[in-house]
Amino acid sequence: MTTATTTAVGPAGAADKSKPYAELCSLLRSAAVWKSVDATLSWDQETLMPPRGAPLRADQLQALSGLVHEKFTDQRIAELVSQAEADPGLTGDDAAKANLREIRRDYEKRIKLPKSLVEEIARCSSLGMHAWKEAREKSEFSIFQPWLEKTIELSCKKAECLGVPAGGELYDALFDEYEPQMTAARTTEIFKPLREFTVNLIERVRDATDGFTKTPDIGNAHRDLPIETQKLFSKRILEETGFDFMAGRLDVSTHPFCESPGPGDTRLTNRYRPDGWLDAISSATHEGGHGLYEQGLSAEWFGTPLGEAISLGIHESQSRMWENLVGRSRPFWGWAFDIAGDVFGTAALQGLDEDKVHRAANMVKPSFIRVEADEVTYNLHIMLRFDLERAMVAGDLAPKDLPGVWNKRMKSDFGLDVPNDAKGCLQDVHWSMGAVGYFSTYTLGNLYSAQFWEAMAKDIPNRNELMAQGEFAPILDWLRLNIHRHGRRFSAEDLCTRITGSPLQCEPLMRHLEAKVKAVYGV
Amino acid sequence: MTTATTTAVGPAGAADKSKPYAELCSLLRSAAVWKSVDATLSWDQETLMPPRGAPLRADQLQALSGLVHEKFTDQRIAELVSQAEADPGLTGDDAAKANLREIRRDYEKRIKLPKSLVEEIARCSSLGMHAWKEAREKSEFSIFQPWLEKTIELSCKKAECLGVPAGGELYDALFDEYEPQMTAARTTEIFKPLREFTVNLIERVRDATDGFTKTPDIGNAHRDLPIETQKLFSKRILEETGFDFMAGRLDVSTHPFCESPGPGDTRLTNRYRPDGWLDAISSATHEGGHGLYEQGLSAEWFGTPLGEAISLGIHESQSRMWENLVGRSRPFWGWAFDIAGDVFGTAALQGLDEDKVHRAANMVKPSFIRVEADEVTYNLHIMLRFDLERAMVAGDLAPKDLPGVWNKRMKSDFGLDVPNDAKGCLQDVHWSMGAVGYFSTYTLGNLYSAQFWEAMAKDIPNRNELMAQGEFAPILDWLRLNIHRHGRRFSAEDLCTRITGSPLQCEPLMRHLEAKVKAVYGV
Repeated sequence: MTTATTTAVGPAGAADKSKPYAELCSLLRSAAVWKSVDATLSWDQETLMPPRGAPLRADQLQALSGLVHEKFTDQRIAELVSQAEADPGLTGDDAAKANLREIRRDYEKRIKLPKSLVEEIARCSSLGMHAWKEAREKSEFSIFQPWLEKTIELSCKKAECLGVPAGGELYDALFDEYEPQMTAARTTEIFKPLREFTVNLIERVRDATDGFTKTPDIGNAHRDLPIETQKLFSKRILEETGFDFMAGRLDVSTHPFCESPGPGDTRLTNRYRPDGWLDAISSATHEGGHGLYEQGLSAEWFGTPLGEAISLGIHESQSRMWENLVGRSRPFWGWAFDIAGDVFGTAALQGLDEDKVHRAANMVKPSFIRVEADEVTYNLHIMLRFDLERAMVAGDLAPKDLPGVWNKRMKSDFGLDVPNDAKGCLQDVHWSMGAVGYFSTYTLGNLYSAQFWEAMAKDIPNRNELMAQGEFAPILDWLRLNIHRHGRRFSAEDLCTRITGSPLQCEPLMRHLEAKVKAVYGV
Repeated sequence: MTTATTTAVGPAGAADKSKPYAELCSLLRSAAVWKSVDATLSWDQETLMPPRGAPLRADQLQALSGLVHEKFTDQRIAELVSQAEADPGLTGDDAAKANLREIRRDYEKRIKLPKSLVEEIARCSSLGMHAWKEAREKSEFSIFQPWLEKTIELSCKKAECLGVPAGGELYDALFDEYEPQMTAARTTEIFKPLREFTVNLIERVRDATDGFTKTPDIGNAHRDLPIETQKLFSKRILEETGFDFMAGRLDVSTHPFCESPGPGDTRLTNRYRPDGWLDAISSATHEGGHGLYEQGLSAEWFGTPLGEAISLGIHESQSRMWENLVGRSRPFWGWAFDIAGDVFGTAALQGLDEDKVHRAANMVKPSFIRVEADEVTYNLHIMLRFDLERAMVAGDLAPKDLPGVWNKRMKSDFGLDVPNDAKGCLQDVHWSMGAVGYFSTYTLGNLYSAQFWEAMAKDIPNRNELMAQGEFAPILDWLRLNIHRHGRRFSAEDLCTRITGSPLQCEPLMRHLEAKVKAVYGV
């Protein structure tokens, strides 16, 4: 039995190589413990907190964000980084060098933000999210509008403090928080061919289905199934794909998410509708992908970049891979349909089979809600959000005009008339929690996932056979080996080149979508 | 819409009366926000945290306890208290005077504890509770023994730092944390006549029931009922007795408890067995009583003594009152049996009626588990724990000898052979969380509750009729008016004298138990 000893950071012997480096890692770990408290309270706020607890929670999160900011901007960090960089004990230690590179990068960004602004942003997020929930429930944009205005205002202030990269725009400073080194201009360039391809692919499906009125045979796949049983099914699939429930949970929230305070505590949420079992399994595998990444990060480097996810794009590559490339594949359903029979009872699935469910999980049809969108139309949802938030930050779109502009774009991109703001610009949690510059990482994640998936196929040639048997360990092991264990050792595009031989490209995702539509629609 | 403004402490205009006092209250409120973070994480640890999250949680709680200690021992508090005490603006403000009296008392106690000890105690509690859970599940005392040793050792260190009151013993310093100004000697004096009375009353029941082998007619009251429905029943009863679920929750844990991080967020837990619906309703009304007290405290004084509970004895007077004097009364069951019929369906309660259930809820019989004990034998459980923890602190009982001594005392006091430590000395959570000096507050609470209950009868002469109608608002209003709203303005015994005309006495509880046994057993 031991008490009062804090878990050491880094592998045994690290302290012998460089004392400043060991002290630095330990200091960062203590700071990360405070960040993990914030993460736990944020999770609670989204899942369990009683409504009247909101004002106190805002005070708590404001105080925490201030303290976390203080800890991560401690001048001692700068001193130790400099000492460690010059320490001959670390010569040839590439991992340490990468860690120091990232620690310095984080530090230099953080000291640009005044504590008062960080606290104000935290407070606005906590209360703003509360307002967003109410606005979404009542479908009343006016409840959320002042918070959106405040969020954009604070985001711009933050971006100004962080500074616009050379040749870039204000938005890039925010973007960099989620996808380091990525810019709005580069993203636009990557998105352009994908947008053209997507519009064309949707047209082909529309023509093949009399304007989306006919579908291939999917039976009555979207039947009502009991929500409590759907929860069991989600849990079962997550267990089988490798999520460790001794080190995690699955709960319910308005908007599915994954929050991982730290090693041993990774929490997923999901949402359920009686007729939404296929949506629920998509969001379960999606959040599960995030959770598997978090559970695969090095616990011994907790608090330092070597124990952290690279970027949201890479995070999304993991979630979208498990959601789409695994969870919407034909081999997956060859196995998962039997599991569904186990859990729901075969009578409940009467008239369905693997093929029908596989097709049902892959219908292409323009729709209102991003998280329920099919793989093909999904990226158009992202491009819409990317363009509108970029315009709000640039001052070209006033938050009060958001609903109108959103609805117009839904009409031109999707041919849809948005019936209310809950199905329009109020559907996503991101802006309410101050996350401006986040959305495009979903599509970047889709692109990374397809590129990684093609590379993985060379190492696991029998992947389809394995998935059809419910054997997901080789996939997870490959991700752990090639991605998870490195933390932030490599930048996103460097990692991509290292694994796939080239930086991020559109072609793998387009090849995947082309093949999917061919298999399901025959066009 | 406002952001970044922290809720003001105290009623509007307080700052005009005394600036030092206003600043003091605001400083304490900020410190209390940190304490509320700790409370939320402690709650999560007991209810939801995945097992592998335990080491990180221990780090979090250790860091938090250190910070909370720092905030509450800030020297600025002492300066402001002195300035406020001398401030003519507060002349004639008795509430402010009481607040300053208690703030000074707390401060002077806290500065006696070194931060390192506070952190070590927090860490030991967090990990010790984890060990206790495992020990209890496996009924293996050896798993918990080293943690108990550490807990007693740290408690003694703490008591030495706090200092033994004149004429008192080491234990008193710990006791004072839970029941300010109470001592082991005074408690022994109060317990003595109650013990004699209890032993005699149990003998009378034993003689009337052929050694507890016969019972009055209770039908098959302890039948199996679905746990999910039991949860609904608990929730319904709590709603009807006035617990605000917009500002609180009810969840499941190993050991039922109430944790109230602060205004708007009061969390109860309960536990359920298929045949334990009556036990579940007892623990629900018990924890509900704690929760109603917390929800009745002044939110505007949050962080200062005027917004805090007086003592655990007074806290327990509220929980035991709702559990026993309300929830085990004949009028209560006259109403609650119909509610049970609503919730479980009348068919599920076939063969039962109000009288049978009332009697079943009031059977007197020596048993192993404190929280499931009847009102009469309950206090003997407390006296056992009080004596043993006092002996451990005095060094007269080694923790390793606890199981043997516990079991011997169970034999002599209850005539029972303890079959395993899970039903013996491992049953309660308190020692595992470092709470030594806590137990006797349960019996003090029983005594206070009966004395308050008699005083209340004079103000609400038709109380029985109201309860039989499910009208609990007059009772709750009386408690809010006479007890809750005052916070710590009065000491426990002063409040008691103020409400009942005399300090704590044994007679009201003995009168209540005498009448109860007469009604149920006719002896």
